[in-house]
Amino acid sequence: MPIDRIRLPRLRDRIMSPEAAAALFADGMTVGMSGFTRAGDCKAVPFALAERAAREPLSITLMTGASLGNDIDKVLTDANVISRRIPFQSDPTLRRKINAGEVMFIDQHLSETVEQLRAGQIAPVDIAVVEATAITENGGIVPTTSVGNSASFAVLAKKIIVEINLTMPLGLEGLHDIYIPTYRPHRLPIPLISPAQRIGLPYIPVDPEKIVAIVVTQKADSPSNVLPPDAETRAIAGHLNDFLAHEVKAGRLSPALQPLQAGIGTIANAVLHGMLDSPFRDLKMYSEVLQDSTIELLDAGRLSFASASSITLSKDTYERVLGDIERYKSRLVLRPQEISNHPEVIRRLGLITINTALECDIYGNVNSTHVGGTHMMNGIGGSGDFARNAHLSVFVTKAVAKHGAISSIVPMVSHVDHTEHDTDIIVTEHGLAELRGLAPRERARQIIYNCADPLYRDLLWDYFARASRRGGHTPHLLQEAFAWHLRFEGTGSMLEQQRQPEAVPA
Amino acid sequence: MPIDRIRLPRLRDRIMSPEAAAALFADGMTVGMSGFTRAGDCKAVPFALAERAAREPLSITLMTGASLGNDIDKVLTDANVISRRIPFQSDPTLRRKINAGEVMFIDQHLSETVEQLRAGQIAPVDIAVVEATAITENGGIVPTTSVGNSASFAVLAKKIIVEINLTMPLGLEGLHDIYIPTYRPHRLPIPLISPAQRIGLPYIPVDPEKIVAIVVTQKADSPSNVLPPDAETRAIAGHLNDFLAHEVKAGRLSPALQPLQAGIGTIANAVLHGMLDSPFRDLKMYSEVLQDSTIELLDAGRLSFASASSITLSKDTYERVLGDIERYKSRLVLRPQEISNHPEVIRRLGLITINTALECDIYGNVNSTHVGGTHMMNGIGGSGDFARNAHLSVFVTKAVAKHGAISSIVPMVSHVDHTEHDTDIIVTEHGLAELRGLAPRERARQIIYNCADPLYRDLLWDYFARASRRGGHTPHLLQEAFAWHLRFEGTGSMLEQQRQPEAVPA
Repeated sequence: MPIDRIRLPRLRDRIMSPEAAAALFADGMTVGMSGFTRAGDCKAVPFALAERAAREPLSITLMTGASLGNDIDKVLTDANVISRRIPFQSDPTLRRKINAGEVMFIDQHLSETVEQLRAGQIAPVDIAVVEATAITENGGIVPTTSVGNSASFAVLAKKIIVEINLTMPLGLEGLHDIYIPTYRPHRLPIPLISPAQRIGLPYIPVDPEKIVAIVVTQKADSPSNVLPPDAETRAIAGHLNDFLAHEVKAGRLSPALQPLQAGIGTIANAVLHGMLDSPFRDLKMYSEVLQDSTIELLDAGRLSFASASSITLSKDTYERVLGDIERYKSRLVLRPQEISNHPEVIRRLGLITINTALECDIYGNVNSTHVGGTHMMNGIGGSGDFARNAHLSVFVTKAVAKHGAISSIVPMVSHVDHTEHDTDIIVTEHGLAELRGLAPRERARQIIYNCADPLYRDLLWDYFARASRRGGHTPHLLQEAFAWHLRFEGTGSMLEQQRQPEAVPA
Repeated sequence: MPIDRIRLPRLRDRIMSPEAAAALFADGMTVGMSGFTRAGDCKAVPFALAERAAREPLSITLMTGASLGNDIDKVLTDANVISRRIPFQSDPTLRRKINAGEVMFIDQHLSETVEQLRAGQIAPVDIAVVEATAITENGGIVPTTSVGNSASFAVLAKKIIVEINLTMPLGLEGLHDIYIPTYRPHRLPIPLISPAQRIGLPYIPVDPEKIVAIVVTQKADSPSNVLPPDAETRAIAGHLNDFLAHEVKAGRLSPALQPLQAGIGTIANAVLHGMLDSPFRDLKMYSEVLQDSTIELLDAGRLSFASASSITLSKDTYERVLGDIERYKSRLVLRPQEISNHPEVIRRLGLITINTALECDIYGNVNSTHVGGTHMMNGIGGSGDFARNAHLSVFVTKAVAKHGAISSIVPMVSHVDHTEHDTDIIVTEHGLAELRGLAPRERARQIIYNCADPLYRDLLWDYFARASRRGGHTPHLLQEAFAWHLRFEGTGSMLEQQRQPEAVPA
């Protein structure tokens, strides 16, 4: 252990094994762990907790930044350690237990978790477990590849366990900007007025006496599992870039656009990737997670700065960036997710936000989370923070799934995460619907004509036409609003075989 | 016309008749009018427009702050003047045309309209028509009983028509605080850190040369049509006050609570009225509209300050307050609705927000706007601005409507305005459901046990129990999610006569 990893000498005798650290937990505790979109999660203590749970009852409320890597959620779920999970996850095993009603999942807007903690609205954190690059002279914790909720977890927790990860380069120090809003009723404006600005400290300031254990690890983050662009995601990127270029031409946007946010995932990554060939320059990101596409845009000189709460990269890019962190550090900053996702800052900066929809309806309501209206995928994540407060809120989705058996454009979404008010643009591989300033009936025409797959276009029009004749600001036929979902459940396809739908007028 | 009503002398020769002012409009224009929840609307020009439209085609996009009084929306609708309406309305005649698809209604979060105008995202305002108390020495416009969107309409419009209302006391000058956010990309934090703070000017600053007409009126605002508290709304107030008192006792709130917002309407008014008998003191409001209950709380010394965008009172209270405005002015401020409803300020101040639901579902999703999922009532108004960013987001509703034929608690809401993430508390006359930190299945138990009417409790439990057995994070039976709404449509009641529902366990 190089002494520059723990620069407050008296903390060095708190180094212990993961097993010893795991003994500090008690059944029923609330635990706040670092980790956001697989980046910067703890790599030892969670596994020691799972082992301990094999011998004795140990069940906790687990709070994190967002999703964890290294199968941590799976291992903890299999060991029955997790009774409650807040505010996001993306693990298939945990998901199964959530959908069976065996784990209580509190799916939250990612900017809100620590606000609720601070106000005593949810159970306080007993122990924070935070992965760190180093501990400073004054006991400050330098995070690794994500900040997530770690700063407020550590500040608010009774005890802190730090995992020092020796594979994380010391050069990460200086990458982070830790700002925590002042307390009400004397809260001041968050002074951030541009994506590149630093307003806080490069470490998490804590009382060193709260650090009760330090565990040393040497495991890397799980690499991103984002797929490379394909024909459809390239088409989506093309439609959006064409639209943005048109907005620049019309004088409504500058060639630097507005600061960009892109949700995690294959489509959002492909959209940013597509900006490599765009006319835009001096781009900036103000996002929650940076993916490979961010690094490509930085390397190409098209992006001048990126702010986020985590960096989640493929294996090669991860190694390249961490191996050359000094070169990237001046153009990157990682912030607490409360700040990367804060309504105040998002509205002020005026972001263009790009998030993925599971399904959209003909009026612009978006389902990001619930398959068939009932089964949780991952959680709403930051999409609500961004979409609500964006300058331009874009949702992207492929028009069909399962080889055409599912239409992503449906008469009525089976679960609403984002209402019609928070959706400005919808893009599929077939085209782009511009919804700003339109009434629901006008939006339906845009979405059906431009975004729906040809397989489903006439069926959607048929629904809309018949519903419109029955009247209403937002026409619907409640008796068949979910007929497509039910048909898929019954027959394996949303496509109707028998009847001839009313055709879309030319 | 006293000379202190138009203090910039060269403007005095722009006084003209409403008919002459109406001649300045052209078919197809976008018009921004003052008026917010019946307060401070224009009282002459709209009627002259309607008269002109009887003689020649005249159709406009009408933008306002919120709803208008004096039947303006009705008169303009009957004259076919309104082709598009933004961002809120509450008129039965206009509503009918909206629901018939004959008027395009763009229902918006009330903080967002002028943001979209400023960014060129919706059609620019050709003419602003603003009711004023006076015009200052430098041509500044002093509003009357509301600010609404008037400030940005006037600043952004090509031409301005001012209606000077002689019934508005000159003492209203000094009541308003006009702050408009700076332009992106150099936008600064909104410096407001407490409800009573003034951060702007007491008038709307405009280039006086844009004021092309001044019309003199003498008509009062339409009085509020809020009903007095009844047994149910008193019970709702009681449950909420008990809960808040409990939060104070638990140390999570101070006896001054947090700044209060209350939506317009009978129930929210009754809840505030109920605070007359509460243990809370030194209360403050940071709301969009002030109703009679605000004045009662001020008079009783229980409320120390109220900030809003409009004042909408019953006839007697209106006359009392306007007649004694100097006494109230030091404890009131009216702001642009962009500021009263701004996410940045709401999140910073940490409001307790109280808004009315049309229906709630067992998981906490709220429908505020659409009857039967299709027919628009008024619009989402500011409820989304407040609920999303609140410290504590409360929705209130009577448990049943139409003498029990409609349950306000349903298996699935037929339209979503506020998602489960934005609902902390639901209150009906039967009780209060505390949803913070709960998963959907836990929320369902709270809502069914505490809020549902006994007539519907077992039916709701039956749905939830059967859906839960099918699984899912948010259990639903899509084939019968809207069965209650359809039954009401078919039989006039949501109540099922035949089958015996599964009973709520004790």
